[in-house]
Amino acid sequence: MTRLLDGLANAEQLQRMTGSELAQLALEIRETLCGLLSIRTAHFASNLGVVELCLALHSVFDFRSDRLIWDTGHQIYPHKLITGRYADFASIRTRGGLMGYPNPNESEYDLFMTGHAGCSVSTALGLKSGDDLLSQSNRKSVAVIGDGAFPSGIVFEALNNAGELGCNLLIVLNDNRMSICPRVGSVARYLDRLRTNPFYTGLKNEVVRILNHVPVLGDPTERLLAQVKEGVKAGLHGGMLFEDLGIRYVGPIDGHNIPLMRKYLKMVKDQKGPVLLHVVTEKGHGYQPAAQDPVFFHTPPAFQDDGGKAKVLGGSGAPAYTNYARDAIVAAMRSDPRVTVMTAAMCQGNKLEPVREEFPERFFDVGICESHAVAFAAGHAKVGLRPIVSIYSTFMQRSYDQIFQEVALQDLPVTLMMDRGGLAGPDGPTHHGVFDIGYLRVLPNILLLAPGDGPELAAMLDFALQHDGAVGIRYPKASAPDLNLHQQPIELGRGQIVRWGSPSNLDDEHHPQVEGAIIGLGPMLELAIRAAEKLSKEGIEVAVINPRFIKPLDVELMRRVFQDCRFIITAEEAALMGGFGSAVLELACDQGWETRGLRRLGIPDYFVEHGERDELLADFGLSVEGLVKACREMAGQCHAVEA
Amino acid sequence: MTRLLDGLANAEQLQRMTGSELAQLALEIRETLCGLLSIRTAHFASNLGVVELCLALHSVFDFRSDRLIWDTGHQIYPHKLITGRYADFASIRTRGGLMGYPNPNESEYDLFMTGHAGCSVSTALGLKSGDDLLSQSNRKSVAVIGDGAFPSGIVFEALNNAGELGCNLLIVLNDNRMSICPRVGSVARYLDRLRTNPFYTGLKNEVVRILNHVPVLGDPTERLLAQVKEGVKAGLHGGMLFEDLGIRYVGPIDGHNIPLMRKYLKMVKDQKGPVLLHVVTEKGHGYQPAAQDPVFFHTPPAFQDDGGKAKVLGGSGAPAYTNYARDAIVAAMRSDPRVTVMTAAMCQGNKLEPVREEFPERFFDVGICESHAVAFAAGHAKVGLRPIVSIYSTFMQRSYDQIFQEVALQDLPVTLMMDRGGLAGPDGPTHHGVFDIGYLRVLPNILLLAPGDGPELAAMLDFALQHDGAVGIRYPKASAPDLNLHQQPIELGRGQIVRWGSPSNLDDEHHPQVEGAIIGLGPMLELAIRAAEKLSKEGIEVAVINPRFIKPLDVELMRRVFQDCRFIITAEEAALMGGFGSAVLELACDQGWETRGLRRLGIPDYFVEHGERDELLADFGLSVEGLVKACREMAGQCHAVEA
Repeated sequence: MTRLLDGLANAEQLQRMTGSELAQLALEIRETLCGLLSIRTAHFASNLGVVELCLALHSVFDFRSDRLIWDTGHQIYPHKLITGRYADFASIRTRGGLMGYPNPNESEYDLFMTGHAGCSVSTALGLKSGDDLLSQSNRKSVAVIGDGAFPSGIVFEALNNAGELGCNLLIVLNDNRMSICPRVGSVARYLDRLRTNPFYTGLKNEVVRILNHVPVLGDPTERLLAQVKEGVKAGLHGGMLFEDLGIRYVGPIDGHNIPLMRKYLKMVKDQKGPVLLHVVTEKGHGYQPAAQDPVFFHTPPAFQDDGGKAKVLGGSGAPAYTNYARDAIVAAMRSDPRVTVMTAAMCQGNKLEPVREEFPERFFDVGICESHAVAFAAGHAKVGLRPIVSIYSTFMQRSYDQIFQEVALQDLPVTLMMDRGGLAGPDGPTHHGVFDIGYLRVLPNILLLAPGDGPELAAMLDFALQHDGAVGIRYPKASAPDLNLHQQPIELGRGQIVRWGSPSNLDDEHHPQVEGAIIGLGPMLELAIRAAEKLSKEGIEVAVINPRFIKPLDVELMRRVFQDCRFIITAEEAALMGGFGSAVLELACDQGWETRGLRRLGIPDYFVEHGERDELLADFGLSVEGLVKACREMAGQCHAVEA
Repeated sequence: MTRLLDGLANAEQLQRMTGSELAQLALEIRETLCGLLSIRTAHFASNLGVVELCLALHSVFDFRSDRLIWDTGHQIYPHKLITGRYADFASIRTRGGLMGYPNPNESEYDLFMTGHAGCSVSTALGLKSGDDLLSQSNRKSVAVIGDGAFPSGIVFEALNNAGELGCNLLIVLNDNRMSICPRVGSVARYLDRLRTNPFYTGLKNEVVRILNHVPVLGDPTERLLAQVKEGVKAGLHGGMLFEDLGIRYVGPIDGHNIPLMRKYLKMVKDQKGPVLLHVVTEKGHGYQPAAQDPVFFHTPPAFQDDGGKAKVLGGSGAPAYTNYARDAIVAAMRSDPRVTVMTAAMCQGNKLEPVREEFPERFFDVGICESHAVAFAAGHAKVGLRPIVSIYSTFMQRSYDQIFQEVALQDLPVTLMMDRGGLAGPDGPTHHGVFDIGYLRVLPNILLLAPGDGPELAAMLDFALQHDGAVGIRYPKASAPDLNLHQQPIELGRGQIVRWGSPSNLDDEHHPQVEGAIIGLGPMLELAIRAAEKLSKEGIEVAVINPRFIKPLDVELMRRVFQDCRFIITAEEAALMGGFGSAVLELACDQGWETRGLRRLGIPDYFVEHGERDELLADFGLSVEGLVKACREMAGQCHAVEA
């Protein structure tokens, strides 16, 4: 049977499709999604949930000239399938293939490359305001934002501005009652109350019902008051929260009913001023296991449909750093009642469900509100608790000013656990956490650490919770080795010699056979050890250093390395600009040490695309082979100078 | 006459004061404020506005154990006067004296050192949640936040969380209808509608009035609907926006009536769950000129009361960088209709009123919403406009993630104009803008520039607006010299030799008499020129380099400097960690240049206190004398090596 998707060169064709064709298209998209997602880890449930919404939007608007922003962008798959990328769809999230998020380089239909939540209303408003200034008011502007992203502060800032500017902006609130985990917060509760409204009909019937119950004679006004207020609260007002902000509220409507959505979209399309259309969808819609367990199916591992049940394919290797982090947090909370945990809707990503279960009173998922998470944690720290803020490295950027003012400036003991500190692999540039060293190192009063293996992560958390000040710990999205580093406990500003030439010479401080050193930060340590072993067989003896601390550096250890090694390689899974190697360099300059033997390996100054982490790292010489090669070159240069 | 303030050792005494004593205290505080503020630039109108609120709070709560956060903190003066700091008050905003913002080092009554707006609700909620966990639920927690700060995204994030946690938190909304400039946005309009409510009585009468007009028979439901909705909009509901978020709303009440506020504070003190008390105050209350012109009197220059009119004391020197920036923006907007301007309630601070007047359609003051400002600007850039985001360096931290995702990652032509890039003087550590180089340099796709004088700032803006990508321009809070740098136009990644030994030798590329070089970034350039002149008289010839670009660096120019100079000093008004000198060092390392002759001068790795900018800079050798001294030492070391 010919698929409609095969013949779909352009989303513009949807405007001429019949209702049954659109329904057919929805089926084909779901099939395609289910087919792909059994071979690859990818965002799943959220994409299933927006199939009809996506089709309705593209059949009413022309997004070659109209503007469409999918907030966050993880639900972009149906949009990609109908905008000329069906043929390439199997490549999604693989290197050189389609991105798992919107990508302007792929299609004119993708306007912003996104991945961080909440900015769609601001950018869509900016697009609309800009189009209006350029006398292109005919171009419509639509932001589709989930209820998970909605409480992000920037959304409120954008609504505040949109209500004033009065631009003709359409905000589609895609309400599936989920963030990655079930959503939290009072905005969510408010949306739940709105959902108790009857679909479609809006206010009218409710108003009648309430007013029918208004007593006509002699009742105390207090009772009226209570009744009216409760009526309003229960949903009579139909989105007064938005109306209060100058945004016309329409809804809720069924987000799986294409004709209905088309009707409403046409209605609000030419509204003056900003409109919020409340669309109710089911995350995972159309695939029963996903609808039943949307948390698991947010980004499931590759799985096989086994008679209506999902069967995960492939085994798992060594436990990830994320697991070590979680276990360390649980252990800390068991032993110290002062320990509290904040996360920003990353309970699942950071595998913190057991923490939530065991310590519900000390676990705070504040929703996608990183700024608040950090400032709130500062409050905990101030009263004597030991908060841990567990947020991906890249999302920690959203709390930068709170890390500055509420944490560092106050010198408060808040521990930042930064998962995905490094290349996030298939998620790509919006998720790579490679700037954290640069942006945090510049702030006073924060210690910065990176564990060389899994157990060291636990030791570092223990250290951080004992330290009377702010600590950041960064670790990658990767399996964590056990390198037996624990014999030397974590001490403030002390690194570790893991190898000094061949292992038997570890205690000989001036072993003549050590030509160079690799300072391997975090996950680079394991690569450094393996590179050193290889090099040793070639007759090149190098020391391997586990710096542990990015800030403060171990001055004495660095002095020894600079004195005794003719070449030094720093390796880090972070941006080179202002990074760890740069810190080493600053120290060397301040101390008057020769730096011409220093080579810094890390992430160069451009945004790295998506792909498997190992293959991306290898591009930058951040592999065993890369380190071996760099050492060979450096050793060769030293010999050449001698000769 | 003895002043009550003289005998006030502790705010706790207020709890036992009579109404007339509190009124007397208010008078004395106002007198003290007016007295001080005629001798020093300081926050003024906002402090006059909260005198009664401050007294009411301290007379009802005991903030040695209860928690009080003044949002932003610029309105902290009355609080300081009654918490043991009256005797030292004349020292405020001077070096070694009291801070102009809350300072925990001064008093147990100050919990957080603040200056950035909007975080009070988060920290107060964190304090309350933490106290509850520690079984100290008797401790109350109060956040006082102005309507200007209220639309900040983090406030919404905090309300969302507070409504869910249900902690007993009191949020006092200090509504004076002003940010620094008149406030903007739909939240402001909403507050205006709430203010139309009759004071104190709350909802009851309104409800009666509306319900009396409900037609009993046969009217179309549409009319009912409209009426009820309008009734709700007009204020019937009494703060449903907050109630919808799970926050009990009380108010509005008169914020200059101490007994009334005490009554309401006592009432809400033991409420369960979060409460928002809407207090209406007048910015500048009690001093007629300030009440009439609260924009000017937000932070007026030292002035004399001249028969009820304020007379500014002291003349102004050279125009500030801020003026050059404003004039350059106006010129650019006149010549290029694509130029738009965003600011985040900093219209006055950045002297942009003429821009707002002349180009109201292309000027966007979005309120204290830096995140939105940047993402909104990205929307403008995407449709072909050339937005300029004009925000203080330190406040730009709040949009860090949007600079990353919405601007840099998209490679969009947004120009960030960062005023106060450097030490902000008397405002102190929350306002010093010394981290911008560190946090921005690490992001790909952004050019970073710093002008060496006033006219160069204009040239750099022109360059930025022609550049097809993001540009950041940082400049200090200082008068701008005219150093006649314009003969060489701004070119991408090209710096400038301002002096190469004695001026006559400027064209001789290898003048043997040049011993060293000073690379003077931004305002350090003028100091470098003057230092070079002094050194020349001592027989030490140094080159003076205007780098112009922090990123990308001028590789060829740097190569020449490293080849020809035996010592090099980089001077920057920014944090040394990851800063400009660090960038030079990275380049040198990558190029294999000798770095032992390099010394980096800048801001060390701690938070710098308040004081006059020049005196603070001098501490770090960032003065003519400091540069001369550094050069002498470096030259001496070079000679010693030779001898």
